[in-house]
Amino acid sequence: MATGEILARKGQMVVMSGPSGAGKSTLCRRLLEDPRVHFSISATTRKPRTGEVDGRDYHFITPEQFRQLIREGAFIEHAEVHGNLYGTLRKPMEDALARGEVFLLEIDVQGANQLKLLGEPGLYIFVSPPDFETLRRRLVGRGTDAPEVVERRLKKAEDEYRERVKYDHVVINEDLDRALRQIRSLIGLE
Amino acid sequence: MATGEILARKGQMVVMSGPSGAGKSTLCRRLLEDPRVHFSISATTRKPRTGEVDGRDYHFITPEQFRQLIREGAFIEHAEVHGNLYGTLRKPMEDALARGEVFLLEIDVQGANQLKLLGEPGLYIFVSPPDFETLRRRLVGRGTDAPEVVERRLKKAEDEYRERVKYDHVVINEDLDRALRQIRSLIGLE
Repeated sequence: MATGEILARKGQMVVMSGPSGAGKSTLCRRLLEDPRVHFSISATTRKPRTGEVDGRDYHFITPEQFRQLIREGAFIEHAEVHGNLYGTLRKPMEDALARGEVFLLEIDVQGANQLKLLGEPGLYIFVSPPDFETLRRRLVGRGTDAPEVVERRLKKAEDEYRERVKYDHVVINEDLDRALRQIRSLIGLE
Repeated sequence: MATGEILARKGQMVVMSGPSGAGKSTLCRRLLEDPRVHFSISATTRKPRTGEVDGRDYHFITPEQFRQLIREGAFIEHAEVHGNLYGTLRKPMEDALARGEVFLLEIDVQGANQLKLLGEPGLYIFVSPPDFETLRRRLVGRGTDAPEVVERRLKKAEDEYRERVKYDHVVINEDLDRALRQIRSLIGLE
């Protein structure tokens, strides 16, 4: 089965991680302007935030549904982040790769680590802020969240920042267009 | 299926977590002296350490085998710890619970969090050292590991210690026999 699986993969999985505030969501949005790029919609047990749409931003599901999907082997990875479960669905990935598309995953370092350790073939990109101080300013500067939320986010960002050595490529996002060109070139989109 | 699953459960799942050095392995070993208690053997991609036996301490498997087991929905939870994957197999648990036994899991807080978030019914026990300073002394005092290994273990222990509030019960392991009596009473073994 392993062989059939590899033969069927004409496309490429691209994993994008990086601390909150590094700009990876913006980069993913820009990459999606290319019709050859398909974006993974994660399933999560967390409640939708204002403006988030089910099936567009996430598949919002119950813990019981999440448990059933694990039982069916429907996830290629899943992880717990801040008290919620997040998972990447296998089916959309396999379909996109069979069509020869780029399957883009924006997942946290824990999920990316899992995929890498499982030997899931793909391009693992870490989007990094110019330095940790810049990131700290960006995260604190949002000013919309409670201090303990900012504190928790900073701690997680710091932990994530340390994980960048595990990735195939670290892209420094100082200038958005330059970072985008670099990533498109790594993927082979131009 | 959810109903059938619950009806079939005559036994009880007991999750034991706690920082390295809190004494949970010793407590688990003592609990296992009771024939009604069945211990979960995790699957892992990590290499066996000296003295560890496959099928007794862990099921040592390859990342490819681990990936296949995820695909089959064979795990009730799995997580990455220090660059290795660990998972709890569903089948032995369901068999033990159907037989009315206690199914004892010694897993890290990440795995326990996952199970709790998924709504997996069970008794969640956190084994705690008397205080964090005692733990620090125990971990440093082993003196058998490289400084960076001790450092990493301390950091993880500190992170885990903070998670104790999420458990149903925190058992302070100052006196082993007292801690054991407490746990046996929580499980309903006496």
